[in-house]
Amino acid sequence: MSAPNRPIIALAMGDPAGISPELTAKLVALDDVRSKARLVVIGDRRVFDEGARVAAVKPELKTVPPGTNFAIEDGETLFVDLAHLDPAQIERAVASEAGGVFALENYRHALILARDGKADAVCFTPFNKRAMRLARPVYDDEIAFSAVVVGLTTPASEFNVLEKLWNARVTSHIALREVASRLSIERIHRALKLTDQCMRGAGLARPRIAVAGLNPHAGDGGNFGTEEIDIIAPAVAAGQRDGIAAQGPFPADTVFVRARDGAFDAVLTMYHDQGQIAMKLLGFDRGVTLLGGFPFPICTPAHGTAYDIAGRGIASVGATKAAVLLAAEMASRAAGSRSQAAAPGATA
Amino acid sequence: MSAPNRPIIALAMGDPAGISPELTAKLVALDDVRSKARLVVIGDRRVFDEGARVAAVKPELKTVPPGTNFAIEDGETLFVDLAHLDPAQIERAVASEAGGVFALENYRHALILARDGKADAVCFTPFNKRAMRLARPVYDDEIAFSAVVVGLTTPASEFNVLEKLWNARVTSHIALREVASRLSIERIHRALKLTDQCMRGAGLARPRIAVAGLNPHAGDGGNFGTEEIDIIAPAVAAGQRDGIAAQGPFPADTVFVRARDGAFDAVLTMYHDQGQIAMKLLGFDRGVTLLGGFPFPICTPAHGTAYDIAGRGIASVGATKAAVLLAAEMASRAAGSRSQAAAPGATA
Repeated sequence: MSAPNRPIIALAMGDPAGISPELTAKLVALDDVRSKARLVVIGDRRVFDEGARVAAVKPELKTVPPGTNFAIEDGETLFVDLAHLDPAQIERAVASEAGGVFALENYRHALILARDGKADAVCFTPFNKRAMRLARPVYDDEIAFSAVVVGLTTPASEFNVLEKLWNARVTSHIALREVASRLSIERIHRALKLTDQCMRGAGLARPRIAVAGLNPHAGDGGNFGTEEIDIIAPAVAAGQRDGIAAQGPFPADTVFVRARDGAFDAVLTMYHDQGQIAMKLLGFDRGVTLLGGFPFPICTPAHGTAYDIAGRGIASVGATKAAVLLAAEMASRAAGSRSQAAAPGATA
Repeated sequence: MSAPNRPIIALAMGDPAGISPELTAKLVALDDVRSKARLVVIGDRRVFDEGARVAAVKPELKTVPPGTNFAIEDGETLFVDLAHLDPAQIERAVASEAGGVFALENYRHALILARDGKADAVCFTPFNKRAMRLARPVYDDEIAFSAVVVGLTTPASEFNVLEKLWNARVTSHIALREVASRLSIERIHRALKLTDQCMRGAGLARPRIAVAGLNPHAGDGGNFGTEEIDIIAPAVAAGQRDGIAAQGPFPADTVFVRARDGAFDAVLTMYHDQGQIAMKLLGFDRGVTLLGGFPFPICTPAHGTAYDIAGRGIASVGATKAAVLLAAEMASRAAGSRSQAAAPGATA
């Protein structure tokens, strides 16, 4: 039963050549994760066991083949064994097609479990973008892939969450020269609403969202660009009329200092590096990336596959744990708000 | 005699409504500044004395009227009294035309002393941009104003220096939508050369300069913009052919993490906020702004006039001291490299 119990989190094993196997094993062994969520790990049991050996942990889990109807009690962890990768095939610290296929198939399986109501959230340990593209040349990013698998047609967005500070962006993986022309009142307003909605879903009652300007000194009153006046300020006003605690536009170079010091819960940025420069300096490697706008939360640690330390058992599980706990929190709240209707038994 | 002695620094008093008067007084009282430079303060003695009262310091200085021939010994400090502002005219924490006129005239006087060879460098305590514009509606920034006073026709650039990390930028106060079209191989190459030259002038034998990309993930191999391939990489190569230790282009969101951790001495950024977001988070308020490309160094603390704490004597003099010491270091090295030709006596 999903509603009264801890949420079920489908955890896809990421790239097998980096730290993902050892992180997955470390995560499963954490009592404080087990007390918040029922984990269903998706991968190959041999790769997982090798990760557990590296991490020097012996987590208890029950292995099932894919497609099984499963029941899972609080405190239990399941392992759905796709049995698709022999660890001997993988050279440590090398991005490969086999590694990309492994991560993609695990992730697809996890998404389908959640799409079909058999899991309440999806998490994954780090992917390697090069391996993903070797496996799937058209692979763009997790949002695009997930939208296809889930059949999502409404807007989705990446959120970066570092402890109490959230960052969302209006544009992302596009050339800087295209950013200004992609901004519109509607698009910024929509990003504001999605940010507010996701943060409320994570338990913030009325998140204080600072909106960054686009231009130096937020345009300096129109001297260096007018997007603040023509587009961003009206979008902030529209958000405020919706009841969102939005403020701005603020100069991008000081808004993160203020946010770091507690003045805001989130910064909505206009383009990729505007937020990423700040978040990475603030230690975002310890943070969580959330894909918002899907029918269920999708979370992953913000750091990468760390090929340089893979296989040594020293990788910190902190960000992965934070990702799973955020997903669990959001899934629990979503279940709570889906009324008290009887929840269906979880089967796969 | 300038060459064998400590360099002469013309220090212009900045906005009188903020912390500039107390900072100027605190600075003059520092023995470790006096041991590196001979200061010539430009302002109104009454405003300075009020600053000294607020700062609770009693620095020794000899007051002279403007236009005097002056001789200044090591360890001495002069005050050139323009006698142009009664402190009673200034309301604390309010930007005013009178305050702007005061700061502008002090600064102009300091620039002229250096232009005419009577000072080796120029420093100033913080200006208030609003006051400057009340005094001079066409006031754009310090670089443009200084170029007019000095008669500079070659390129100049602002550098931000925080402890050991330098940041320079290829474009600055322009709308973000114009940034990409303003970049060229020649312009980036020129900025690289100026950065290298200024840093060598400050004593770095072979500064390691990281060049930031323009686009997210530095264009991701051309997927999100091609300026890295078409413009930035060729400019880096051109700099390397000149013997500059330039590297890049690097993704902007990680290059500052690496620079902070010691991998580079400087980051050359493509636009204003790319550097400012990072530098402000790193604590640039404690840093120094250097105007490079002039015949003499011009330095100022990076922070502003701090109207919120003006008059309380609590403003930290650290950044002002760092500004004067950087100017003194650069002026000493420039004097040393201007051969052993007999230096003229300093007179005004």
